[in-house]
Amino acid sequence: MVIILKKQTEESELNRLRTWLERQNVTISVIAGEQHTLWGVVGDTSRIDTDMVESFEAVEGIRRISEPYKLASRSSRPGDTVIDIGNGVKIGGGNFTYFAGPCTIESEFQIISVAKSVKAAGAHVLRGGAFKPRTSPYTFQGMRDAGLRMLLEAKKETGLPVVTEIMDVSQIELFEDVDIIQVGARNMQNYELLKELGKISKPVFLKRGQSATYQDLLMSAEYIMAEGNPDVILCERGIRTFEPATRNTLDLASVPYLKGKTHLPVIVDPSHASGMSELVKPLAFAAAACGADGLMIEVHNNPSTALCDGPQAVLPDEFSEIVAGVEKIRNAIR
Amino acid sequence: MVIILKKQTEESELNRLRTWLERQNVTISVIAGEQHTLWGVVGDTSRIDTDMVESFEAVEGIRRISEPYKLASRSSRPGDTVIDIGNGVKIGGGNFTYFAGPCTIESEFQIISVAKSVKAAGAHVLRGGAFKPRTSPYTFQGMRDAGLRMLLEAKKETGLPVVTEIMDVSQIELFEDVDIIQVGARNMQNYELLKELGKISKPVFLKRGQSATYQDLLMSAEYIMAEGNPDVILCERGIRTFEPATRNTLDLASVPYLKGKTHLPVIVDPSHASGMSELVKPLAFAAAACGADGLMIEVHNNPSTALCDGPQAVLPDEFSEIVAGVEKIRNAIR
Amino acid sequence: MVIILKKQTEESELNRLRTWLERQNVTISVIAGEQHTLWGVVGDTSRIDTDMVESFEAVEGIRRISEPYKLASRSSRPGDTVIDIGNGVKIGGGNFTYFAGPCTIESEFQIISVAKSVKAAGAHVLRGGAFKPRTSPYTFQGMRDAGLRMLLEAKKETGLPVVTEIMDVSQIELFEDVDIIQVGARNMQNYELLKELGKISKPVFLKRGQSATYQDLLMSAEYIMAEGNPDVILCERGIRTFEPATRNTLDLASVPYLKGKTHLPVIVDPSHASGMSELVKPLAFAAAACGADGLMIEVHNNPSTALCDGPQAVLPDEFSEIVAGVEKIRNAIR
Amino acid sequence: MVIILKKQTEESELNRLRTWLERQNVTISVIAGEQHTLWGVVGDTSRIDTDMVESFEAVEGIRRISEPYKLASRSSRPGDTVIDIGNGVKIGGGNFTYFAGPCTIESEFQIISVAKSVKAAGAHVLRGGAFKPRTSPYTFQGMRDAGLRMLLEAKKETGLPVVTEIMDVSQIELFEDVDIIQVGARNMQNYELLKELGKISKPVFLKRGQSATYQDLLMSAEYIMAEGNPDVILCERGIRTFEPATRNTLDLASVPYLKGKTHLPVIVDPSHASGMSELVKPLAFAAAACGADGLMIEVHNNPSTALCDGPQAVLPDEFSEIVAGVEKIRNAIR
Repeated sequence: MVIILKKQTEESELNRLRTWLERQNVTISVIAGEQHTLWGVVGDTSRIDTDMVESFEAVEGIRRISEPYKLASRSSRPGDTVIDIGNGVKIGGGNFTYFAGPCTIESEFQIISVAKSVKAAGAHVLRGGAFKPRTSPYTFQGMRDAGLRMLLEAKKETGLPVVTEIMDVSQIELFEDVDIIQVGARNMQNYELLKELGKISKPVFLKRGQSATYQDLLMSAEYIMAEGNPDVILCERGIRTFEPATRNTLDLASVPYLKGKTHLPVIVDPSHASGMSELVKPLAFAAAACGADGLMIEVHNNPSTALCDGPQAVLPDEFSEIVAGVEKIRNAIR
Repeated sequence: MVIILKKQTEESELNRLRTWLERQNVTISVIAGEQHTLWGVVGDTSRIDTDMVESFEAVEGIRRISEPYKLASRSSRPGDTVIDIGNGVKIGGGNFTYFAGPCTIESEFQIISVAKSVKAAGAHVLRGGAFKPRTSPYTFQGMRDAGLRMLLEAKKETGLPVVTEIMDVSQIELFEDVDIIQVGARNMQNYELLKELGKISKPVFLKRGQSATYQDLLMSAEYIMAEGNPDVILCERGIRTFEPATRNTLDLASVPYLKGKTHLPVIVDPSHASGMSELVKPLAFAAAACGADGLMIEVHNNPSTALCDGPQAVLPDEFSEIVAGVEKIRNAIR
Repeated sequence: MVIILKKQTEESELNRLRTWLERQNVTISVIAGEQHTLWGVVGDTSRIDTDMVESFEAVEGIRRISEPYKLASRSSRPGDTVIDIGNGVKIGGGNFTYFAGPCTIESEFQIISVAKSVKAAGAHVLRGGAFKPRTSPYTFQGMRDAGLRMLLEAKKETGLPVVTEIMDVSQIELFEDVDIIQVGARNMQNYELLKELGKISKPVFLKRGQSATYQDLLMSAEYIMAEGNPDVILCERGIRTFEPATRNTLDLASVPYLKGKTHLPVIVDPSHASGMSELVKPLAFAAAACGADGLMIEVHNNPSTALCDGPQAVLPDEFSEIVAGVEKIRNAIR
Repeated sequence: MVIILKKQTEESELNRLRTWLERQNVTISVIAGEQHTLWGVVGDTSRIDTDMVESFEAVEGIRRISEPYKLASRSSRPGDTVIDIGNGVKIGGGNFTYFAGPCTIESEFQIISVAKSVKAAGAHVLRGGAFKPRTSPYTFQGMRDAGLRMLLEAKKETGLPVVTEIMDVSQIELFEDVDIIQVGARNMQNYELLKELGKISKPVFLKRGQSATYQDLLMSAEYIMAEGNPDVILCERGIRTFEPATRNTLDLASVPYLKGKTHLPVIVDPSHASGMSELVKPLAFAAAACGADGLMIEVHNNPSTALCDGPQAVLPDEFSEIVAGVEKIRNAIR
């Protein structure tokens, strides 16, 4: 951390800052320039509250040098995290995982038939929403507890492990038989939820918030890991930008960037990012080509009766084509 | 709502869409153009799931015409909502309310002394954080339950009503004696929390999320109102943009825009928006000049011992100057 | 185009609007809803000035249905535009073109040696900047006319066609022997320049502006095409977002989206988008996988003496690896 | 400037970087931390090309400490720049200037009548577009040379100085009798144009680009000033964000921020920022309250015949009300 000092600062203010910093177990090197005096702060700065530093009278600004995350950092663990969810399904570490299924669970029949379709097409994990975060209180909010039971029925029927979204701490116990708990983009900084998920031993699928930087995402992973749960799966699903044509802007640079900074797996969700079914295949191919550890894809099978399908869902046949193409790309760049 | 149909659509697909729409109690007018055929959908479209419409094979896109919120809409209630929180403090409807206090409650002594300072300077409501959403799990997370008790002590001591942030549904009962419950920007779309807050009879101070549109903010207010709680206070606190110099970009057009669309009060928080204490006064003046119903301002009084003060906090004397200037501006434009 | 009318509008205002619209050779269909009355405007709306429509007293808002571009639209020309720049190099229509070379031309020796390297590695077009748009007036502004001559020398030496950036109308005549004229992101809406480039018969390489939507980019292409020059090459090079880790956010959804909307070729520049050499290869692979018509990549060969190399330039060996990988990916998805 | 070095860097690479830096007349202080080694670079770093520094093998990243602009910086000139355009009109230094007039010049009658109206209402400078940057090539592009002549006629008739937009270097000579030359948002980084405007002695009204940071704006001012023209007027007119309700997001924090960093005047354009006439007055008030040096406001007088009025134009009466309110606010906060 480099601290830029204000020009005319009283000695007493400098001393106050110096004393405070030294109590944080860091050391200070001074660089006196013509325009600014800088303090280089050396040591473990990850626990230093930068807002606190900036509130000192003497401080004009700070520049972070080290990353504020530790457990999520690749420097703390050079090898990739590999998450084994049983049934031969491993996530990360060179494995490529397909998470597929409907946006929303609507009936036992529906979720089981989509589960069979996606399993046949090569999916490793079944996704399906029971608790649904909807922008409007007047639209379908998911089948909730009943939906979870249907999802677990589909798991039993097909053997596919399942991932589904949690929306509140109070729901955790309902997720006991769920294999992976998803935290949606809107809850990426719901820190009370993250802390509770850090106390259980179940992988967490953490979606990037719509206005979250890479660092914000890693800090949210750090919240989970700091409580003891090392199994976090990161998911790029698009950020909010000025472009109105797509629902969000899929930021694929996140994939190689994050994989350089962290040992955690990085999955891409091209369905929610684009909001358009015709963009799912090309973006899935792109994600695989730039090194993602897997894809989360929305698949429906009978749009005519769907209660909450999105315009981004693809049919099982299209999903098969995506899997086939992705496998060819992965072979090509191996 | 206007639905744009795909060019070569089979009759059966059109029928399927028409049947579905008619079941939603709306009527359809057809406009056949050279390039596109449009369906104008007339009736109460607020309950129609637009994702669902877009997932129909026949649909190329939709354009919303009516607002998707109802209870929050000014058309549902032409007069301003005025929220009486006792002690002579009313919010909205031409009143101007100052919410002031420290970022974080640190001790009984601290919160009581800041409370006295801000009360003397003209504040109507004391703010102070007990549960703190921090980006890093390694920085101070607030005094939590103990902090709440200190805040209520300060309320007793000064008579000021209090507002403080909730972070999880499970905390609601702890907020029994709190006058206004704040939902922070990161939880603006934590719908489970919003629904629970809709079931109690206590005003909710709802901060705009960093990537939330005006409509998203109003839809989150609608979540609370749809459950039965009409007392929602909206707060503009800056959005995330590409500009790195300020923490967020304060979007003051939100004030006149929202006040045109909704009867709910609109408060501005210039402290968190800018992240720089020297910008608080000019932005507070600007907020008052464009019609805000009040200000939320971070005030500290002894920065040298603060545990989590932000670089955006002002001293009580500066807060007094802000109040004095704002009152002059309000008189000027009355 | 759908026009939303204000609720209480006087008949005379409606007549004024109706008369004006009818003069534009369009017809109007009325849809009267409970909350709004809509006018569906049918006919060639591409020449209607939407700002003008919105300025009528009677109008609350408008929603565009048809695209405002015509010549650039795929509906005006279903087959892909293929641009033949001689020497067997064709751009678009299933061809994949590599544009490679240094950020800045520094000496005849440098540009010729990089040209030889990239040609050997598979490049089809040599890029190199003579006129350089730099954020600071105090940094190297390019070798300008002399740089252009060196670039043409490199063309003569290697047979590679060349592309280089123009910054002002007055420079057009200097570009006579240049094969493709590049318009940089900062000049994407320099309409005087676009119009002049529309009057010459030389392909234009048009980079997306940092805050340009897909539609803005196509409208800038339309400016060139409307003047008579059909040979426009679009280039995605990243947009400005809140993410600070990368220079810009490469928006790869633009590739399949644009290719659906237009017949023009779409090239991706992963070098400028990311600003980091280690991200160039994965993003180049991703661009190829999602259907780009080519890549523009910054290649340097002797960083130790460079005057203005960017942190995003790769070495010739890395460029060779990129070409090899991209060809495998293209074969895989063919 | 602080340079962050890569961890395992060969001595020869460090030497190469050190030699290069020393040639730039700066000195280096080394801070060796556990995780990173930093070099603090002291001296005049404004001429150092940061892209160049980042391209060195040894460099992991840099953090700028000093501002890269010099002539525009308040530290180079503590007092405010005051620009005297004759006729008693001064801009900056505590003066408050109203720039008003129609979007587009349409006829001599129109511009003269609007000029008279706005003069009567208190305007100091007449604005009006002759060369119009329009997104579509098919909409009215302005009256160009003829429009300029009409504007000068209005100047003669009313005595009001005039400001109008330039779109290309080749137009400069046409602007001889124009008092202030405007550079629009789309041309803010048209560096060839900025350099030429730096060579003449006429104030330049420089609008912030839609994706330009404060620093980008100041660097564009620096381009003009570095060529010898000190009279630059900055204009905040909104930036592009994800919010679709307003045309752009007016960023009023720019006003106090820029006024802290530079001695140049800062004007606010609430008309183009919002794109909605009902937002112009509240945003104008807000701009005055936070310390702007003036306002640019679009005023029309006969919307029924306008060729290119925007939905953001106000009538002369509304402009009068804005002036009256702004004067009261300025008195209130004096």
